[in-house]
Amino acid sequence: MLKMTKAALAIAALLGTAALAHAADSEPIQPIKPAANINLGMVELGKKLYFDPRLSKSGFISCNSCHNLSMGGTDNIPTSIGDKWQQGPINAPTVLNSSLNLAQFWDGRAADLKEQAGGPIANPGEMAFTHTLAIDVLKSIPGYVREFKQVFGKDKIDIDQVTLAIAEFEKTLVTPNSRFDQWLLGKKDALTKDELEGYKLFKDSGCVACHNGEAVGGNSFQKMGLVEPYKAKSPAEGRVAVTGKDADRFNFKVPTLRNVEMTYPYFHDGAANTLTEAVDTMGRLQLGKKFSKEENARIVAFLKTLTGDQPAFQLPILPPSSDSTPRPTPFSK
Amino acid sequence: MLKMTKAALAIAALLGTAALAHAADSEPIQPIKPAANINLGMVELGKKLYFDPRLSKSGFISCNSCHNLSMGGTDNIPTSIGDKWQQGPINAPTVLNSSLNLAQFWDGRAADLKEQAGGPIANPGEMAFTHTLAIDVLKSIPGYVREFKQVFGKDKIDIDQVTLAIAEFEKTLVTPNSRFDQWLLGKKDALTKDELEGYKLFKDSGCVACHNGEAVGGNSFQKMGLVEPYKAKSPAEGRVAVTGKDADRFNFKVPTLRNVEMTYPYFHDGAANTLTEAVDTMGRLQLGKKFSKEENARIVAFLKTLTGDQPAFQLPILPPSSDSTPRPTPFSK
Repeated sequence: MLKMTKAALAIAALLGTAALAHAADSEPIQPIKPAANINLGMVELGKKLYFDPRLSKSGFISCNSCHNLSMGGTDNIPTSIGDKWQQGPINAPTVLNSSLNLAQFWDGRAADLKEQAGGPIANPGEMAFTHTLAIDVLKSIPGYVREFKQVFGKDKIDIDQVTLAIAEFEKTLVTPNSRFDQWLLGKKDALTKDELEGYKLFKDSGCVACHNGEAVGGNSFQKMGLVEPYKAKSPAEGRVAVTGKDADRFNFKVPTLRNVEMTYPYFHDGAANTLTEAVDTMGRLQLGKKFSKEENARIVAFLKTLTGDQPAFQLPILPPSSDSTPRPTPFSK
Repeated sequence: MLKMTKAALAIAALLGTAALAHAADSEPIQPIKPAANINLGMVELGKKLYFDPRLSKSGFISCNSCHNLSMGGTDNIPTSIGDKWQQGPINAPTVLNSSLNLAQFWDGRAADLKEQAGGPIANPGEMAFTHTLAIDVLKSIPGYVREFKQVFGKDKIDIDQVTLAIAEFEKTLVTPNSRFDQWLLGKKDALTKDELEGYKLFKDSGCVACHNGEAVGGNSFQKMGLVEPYKAKSPAEGRVAVTGKDADRFNFKVPTLRNVEMTYPYFHDGAANTLTEAVDTMGRLQLGKKFSKEENARIVAFLKTLTGDQPAFQLPILPPSSDSTPRPTPFSK
């Protein structure tokens, strides 16, 4: 057996750390970092709001309805279900690691998580409420009144506080510790031979040109259908809706591939049911490449190593409404 | 200061316990007991199934959608929302402490939790699926295949296992330790003077004739509108649908009053928005009594002491679908 002194062990550990840091730095994908600079009181409040269907007209739809944290932060259906079962125009992107996105929504129309959080509440096709009515509900609930005061130190509740708290909770929804990240951080047996070959293919074929960085995506807008046009099932036209520039037509935010095994179906229209199908389509349309069955399977094997630690927290218990709380109206116009 | 030997303290504690046990026994309401004889593996599996919308046709509705454990095990709307936003015929009863009910559903048509659990999955107005299709989905999900095998020791998955696991999870959803139970168990300062007076009124006025036992209800069927007829907003006729006896028309299971502050709106048609309104209606229709404003307020104050420890567990993470998993069809006929 090897014998080392404590000092020798410490030096070896330091050297090891330095070597690993170097290895990770030289890869186009970086490990997910656990959340930092987090206001825990605001997180607890934001978590309740995220799960509270009273922020919708019907009293039935919460943020978690379509960005379900039991299911990869998505709803796993092509397009979401909104108030009165309206069919949404686009696939619900995962909320996991969304703090790493350069902007929010597929077309980047919200600058950050705070701005995003206000959208669905007031969208007639989603939660179908208004910010004013949502605040009226929250102001009438004594448990919320106390908690907002505790967190923000003010006697009033406004939509800025609501979206700030939801965004703070969402900042905690990062998923470190995937097998791929363990490999990046030096656990060389964390991946199988097939998975490593899949990663090499992912890099060598050019996938990594858009899917890179900490979130393996989320940091640029790109045209869907670069080499071959994409026949979308969704009417969404992407970034042009924000910039008004024709060159931005069908430009969408590159989705993160973190936890991609859980975030099916794929693409902005949710048209691809499986990773096999998504990899094939991406290869052809974006790279002009037809992956063989074996290549495809290896890339898929690699992609499945990107599933990290899922959010781990107690189901929040919501403060009950009071006699004066406006009641939801799920069946009225 | 008092000085007691250890032995004297022990004797005093024993005497105290005996005295308290006696006190609790002499009351018509007994403290909620924590769940016992629980199969923890089955609970973990049942918890996932309870939160899994893939047991519905749409992939959007889970048990937790209408029996939301963040909101007192109910949906806090008069009647539930089913597949394609169908309006349910009756108010969703709380799942909390439902293991203490003499039977399940308002009309008692299911003998126990296991039998109940199969109902909504196959109800065209609720989850709109079939047991066969639900099993097909589960069988295609490797994470479930492993977990069912671990729990039941068999290679096959069937609906009996599904409903057994959901029922086992539901058995854990008891809510001990309410302030009222603390008082029953000897903490004499757990209730205020008003709350105690409310409890006395609750007993002396006759409410306790039906709302008694561990669940403060749930252990008998009674006619809704005993002294004065009740003008229901629901077409449901109650127990007659099960027995076929005309005498059972408008007989409903007496709901538990545990956590009643969280389970608004009230009655089988969800017509009463507040406890004040519910106490007033019950007094007039069931007891021929008009409570004064002060009496009503005291009874309500007592009822709010029945809120116990809410379910405390980590949000379950669901095993992802595989390529062969049948996809939900939220927008098809």
